[in-house]
Amino acid sequence: MTPAWWSRPCASFDTAAAGAARIRQQSLTKPPGSLGALEDIAIRLAAMQAVERPAMKRVWISVFAADHGVAAEGVSAFPQVVTGEMVRNFSSGGAAISVLARSLGARLDVVNLGTVNDPGEIRGVTRAVIAPQTANFCEAPAMTVEQLDTALRVGAERVAQALEDGADLFIGGEMGIANTTSAAALACALLGESPAMLAGAGTGLDGDGIARKIAAIERALQRHEAARDPLEQLRCVGGFEIAALTGAFVAAAQARMPVLVDGFITTAAALTAVRLNPEVRDWLLFAHRSHERGHARLLDALQAQPLLDLGLRLGEASGAAIAVPLLRLACELHSGMATFAQAGVSQG
Amino acid sequence: MTPAWWSRPCASFDTAAAGAARIRQQSLTKPPGSLGALEDIAIRLAAMQAVERPAMKRVWISVFAADHGVAAEGVSAFPQVVTGEMVRNFSSGGAAISVLARSLGARLDVVNLGTVNDPGEIRGVTRAVIAPQTANFCEAPAMTVEQLDTALRVGAERVAQALEDGADLFIGGEMGIANTTSAAALACALLGESPAMLAGAGTGLDGDGIARKIAAIERALQRHEAARDPLEQLRCVGGFEIAALTGAFVAAAQARMPVLVDGFITTAAALTAVRLNPEVRDWLLFAHRSHERGHARLLDALQAQPLLDLGLRLGEASGAAIAVPLLRLACELHSGMATFAQAGVSQG
Repeated sequence: MTPAWWSRPCASFDTAAAGAARIRQQSLTKPPGSLGALEDIAIRLAAMQAVERPAMKRVWISVFAADHGVAAEGVSAFPQVVTGEMVRNFSSGGAAISVLARSLGARLDVVNLGTVNDPGEIRGVTRAVIAPQTANFCEAPAMTVEQLDTALRVGAERVAQALEDGADLFIGGEMGIANTTSAAALACALLGESPAMLAGAGTGLDGDGIARKIAAIERALQRHEAARDPLEQLRCVGGFEIAALTGAFVAAAQARMPVLVDGFITTAAALTAVRLNPEVRDWLLFAHRSHERGHARLLDALQAQPLLDLGLRLGEASGAAIAVPLLRLACELHSGMATFAQAGVSQG
Repeated sequence: MTPAWWSRPCASFDTAAAGAARIRQQSLTKPPGSLGALEDIAIRLAAMQAVERPAMKRVWISVFAADHGVAAEGVSAFPQVVTGEMVRNFSSGGAAISVLARSLGARLDVVNLGTVNDPGEIRGVTRAVIAPQTANFCEAPAMTVEQLDTALRVGAERVAQALEDGADLFIGGEMGIANTTSAAALACALLGESPAMLAGAGTGLDGDGIARKIAAIERALQRHEAARDPLEQLRCVGGFEIAALTGAFVAAAQARMPVLVDGFITTAAALTAVRLNPEVRDWLLFAHRSHERGHARLLDALQAQPLLDLGLRLGEASGAAIAVPLLRLACELHSGMATFAQAGVSQG
């Protein structure tokens, strides 16, 4: 049996380019290190893009939408019809990520993996419907083997599209009522943590709602306790969009495409991708520390230091989009500043 | 005697506009509160700009450059000629703030208040030379009463220029070898803290350098211990650029102009402005928590929660410029997102 595609090696960093970028940073007209994290980003992007002066012009944002059978357990503050309604809102330009993508000049790619309230064919939305929703993972595996395989491949295909579009950065986002429950269950399975540690308010649950969510995750973890490897854990308690994000992150790392990770749900997918293929980790940049309970634990598990901490908890790739200007400014400072020699400025 | 101009009342927030903005935030297609700090910023800018939907199109950046007599105490990692050299670098486009201003489409206004290595008349630099440098405040007050008065007025004049230019935001920055020593001395005087708590590495001092800096500040505080009010403390241990920033911040608050505060030195000026006129505080937004020792203490004294924490410590207004896209995106999300009713999305 040939190894699965997600096990294939990821691209390597260009250490020569990173070294040249590091030397350039030391020569720019500022005290060494005084641009903090922006210096590290410029050097890391140089290693990824294999150039001394990286660029961040074309940004690709794929938002994967899907419904979750576990919504039947009363684990979301919003009704399930909202997933399909938001797919329409992404397309018509009214959602947060629509506004952000316009402002950034980024390509917004919306992928419908299956919603109970199906918006049908809409302009700007790729239909990749697997099923109206996953199975309720309190009662059965969320996905069949075939559904999981399809979802992973859809994610990889979006990265291929981003590459074809000449993107410098891949951002993945998600929309799916009840998907913080799925992400928390997956995180518990991957990390061996208890649901009370990782389940949060999501879109705005009250205390009773969070208790229902914890109980649902506890039932699911018991039911699927035989699932020991990350792929099977993803199949049992994940969602179509979480699997697509996982596939996208692996494919991006294999294709030398930097990834900017958004919030709680995408970070759960990122951890799954890294568990499937540890080399993926190098290709992940982390945008923000979200307000959702459990995100900090996932970031720790990935040894990730995100750029922003603004109390965001919206999803849709919005937190990653908000961090894009920081990457762009890091690149522009790195490429555009004068060196001490060029400017005739004395060094310390 | 008429009260000084800096004591005159500041502009008031428009509470009706803020209320309308708050209602709008609740109606946008996202879980309430899920855009975190960006929601607060939009509402606060609405109160400042007196409109339901604030905008952040025109950004004005004044960088005030000046030299410091206390540089003679060996308190900087860079030689004093660098202040004048950097004024040239600002003008010719090679400095960090030059790159950032270009990228943001912001107006960069460089003001030379007096440098030992005088670059003379340069394109794009306003000459407002008070003296080649302040007096060494270990031995005498840094400024005369007239010099202080002039520096404060120069700051206010730049705000008047920004208003005339139609700016939505005023950013103040600084350049001046040894000015973290001046800012730390001023912060110690204002807060009653010890120099060891507030003096840091600046542009990159080693341990011996920091010890010299602490000793210099201790001498200065002893010499000027009779200075009890913030104006006299500013005169005795401040600098021309710190005084200009102080004047600018007061004038901005009086003229309904939002201010985005940069790092350690500008925050010391902001605290001075607030001590001179407490109403100034409302008009200050804080861009980042810098890596310079002492900045956190100043932010605490102002009850400020900055947007970014990226280990920056460059000055020149660079940290504030890096935070501008966050303000812009906050405004664009606030104005550009659809409401639940407009998008036909169900509420929770």
